[in-house]
Amino acid sequence: MRIISLAEIEPHLADKAGIITTIKDAFIAHSQGQVTMPDPVQLLFETDENVLNGDCHVKTAKASGFPFFSVKVATGFYDNPAKNLPVNNGLIMLFSAETGEPAILLQDEGHLTMVRTAAAGALAAGLKSSAEPQRLGIIGTGAQAELQARWISEHMDISSVSIWGRNHSKAERLKSRLSPYNVNVMETVSDLCAASDIIVTTTPATSPLLMAADIRPGHHIVALGADSPGKIELDPQLFAKADFVLADDISQCIHHGDIGHAIKAGLISETDITSLGKALSGDVELNKTSISVVDLTGLGVQDLAIASKIYTDILA
Amino acid sequence: MRIISLAEIEPHLADKAGIITTIKDAFIAHSQGQVTMPDPVQLLFETDENVLNGDCHVKTAKASGFPFFSVKVATGFYDNPAKNLPVNNGLIMLFSAETGEPAILLQDEGHLTMVRTAAAGALAAGLKSSAEPQRLGIIGTGAQAELQARWISEHMDISSVSIWGRNHSKAERLKSRLSPYNVNVMETVSDLCAASDIIVTTTPATSPLLMAADIRPGHHIVALGADSPGKIELDPQLFAKADFVLADDISQCIHHGDIGHAIKAGLISETDITSLGKALSGDVELNKTSISVVDLTGLGVQDLAIASKIYTDILA
Repeated sequence: MRIISLAEIEPHLADKAGIITTIKDAFIAHSQGQVTMPDPVQLLFETDENVLNGDCHVKTAKASGFPFFSVKVATGFYDNPAKNLPVNNGLIMLFSAETGEPAILLQDEGHLTMVRTAAAGALAAGLKSSAEPQRLGIIGTGAQAELQARWISEHMDISSVSIWGRNHSKAERLKSRLSPYNVNVMETVSDLCAASDIIVTTTPATSPLLMAADIRPGHHIVALGADSPGKIELDPQLFAKADFVLADDISQCIHHGDIGHAIKAGLISETDITSLGKALSGDVELNKTSISVVDLTGLGVQDLAIASKIYTDILA
Repeated sequence: MRIISLAEIEPHLADKAGIITTIKDAFIAHSQGQVTMPDPVQLLFETDENVLNGDCHVKTAKASGFPFFSVKVATGFYDNPAKNLPVNNGLIMLFSAETGEPAILLQDEGHLTMVRTAAAGALAAGLKSSAEPQRLGIIGTGAQAELQARWISEHMDISSVSIWGRNHSKAERLKSRLSPYNVNVMETVSDLCAASDIIVTTTPATSPLLMAADIRPGHHIVALGADSPGKIELDPQLFAKADFVLADDISQCIHHGDIGHAIKAGLISETDITSLGKALSGDVELNKTSISVVDLTGLGVQDLAIASKIYTDILA
């Protein structure tokens, strides 16, 4: 088994355009039925006081044309910063799809999950591309918020980035890290919505942050924080206002994405949902006055695709 | 992440009694509700002619008192022998249950799965321990058949080992590998049943091999081949004759063990099933004339327990 360290991986993460193409192809292959992804595994961890403070997701995928299948482990332990450790960690393994042999271990410490999520956000945001530059709003101030700002700004024409977080000083620190861009810290989510065409939510919130009342025609929303049944970022009523509801994977989003809450509330039904892969193939055309929501829960085939690309890049 | 090779692991697999105790404790902890095991992941692989020729199972577990949680990948690719490769492969990873960090990778090439299955078979067979030595029958001629013969013979008083396989020359080769024991190759499964008190099935069969007509009072059956919904070793009618039906995990056995076929046929119901952990705690007493069946599908907590023990032994 070839073992690859984060230090070997990192130089290859700079190829944003190449990674975005790889992830786009993965979504399209999935929408064409070329991918097998069993239901992800979720393990939850609690403190002695029964407060949820950690989770582990295991995602697997195989896909036609790929010599390997993937097993990805991603952890998020929310008390880690107090121990001077990053919240997220993880790794991706590739196994031969011909013999089952362990082939490659990418010890990426969670970075590949972060990056394939950033690429998915950029692709989802990019559905709103038009002749005029778009104003981006980001809810959340963590590592994924920063990646979304960078990846979306490189992927499409963005005129301004508004950011909002519950913790104002964290928002200010994110602004300083994003100094090359035209960044403003907003006082409220309503203010952020008024200043944005594309709104990306990146938090592990367990109650809605983005309310239907703040959404107007032309808003394009990308929600990527909810990755387990207890998490929710979007007011379910927001889906009732949407002209387009897109999902990276329809059944995963119903099971543990923001879409699931809207389905449970009877505000939309499964037939209202289009897969992101179909939208990326050109099946969905947003317009200046449409309201659209993309729910991203993260797919095993994204892990398979990015790990295969990075491994190939390292060999090259 | 500490990476441990098979060469480092192998010397520690000789401690059969210690491993059996570890696995027994794991089953009992599971029966006491101290273990969390999400549903296993299964990926199936087919040839270009749509013949199933490979599978991959991913099992995860956390348990109170364990500093790690486990992610185990086990593969079985049935065309590998033609490529001079073993059918089975795999690895176990341990992650910190406090921080989610990858801690240990045991590159055991599938051996730990084989051994923890052997230990489970020995424990299940051992429920039939009595003052008189027992006659063991093994159906199947693969690596697990050999392990069952060895582990059960060391764990309890066995007077003879009968073996049967579809391929007679493989059965003869297994006999020669088991030369220290009193081994006979049987012509038919019926002959094997007549010569055995304990019958262990170890095949990936997809149609029943052990028929109800061959089962008489006093037979104790351990079935460990079926690990996915398409596999079956036991005639479902056999369960209707059983006084005791035991399962390593009740829901897993209903989902993809031999028990599932008997449940679907309406021959037994879920309330007829006792967990192996309860039986190992002394809740079930077999007698000379009872008929009993133990269905083993393999548990994530067995992987967690054996990996933790081996790692601790290596450190010691």
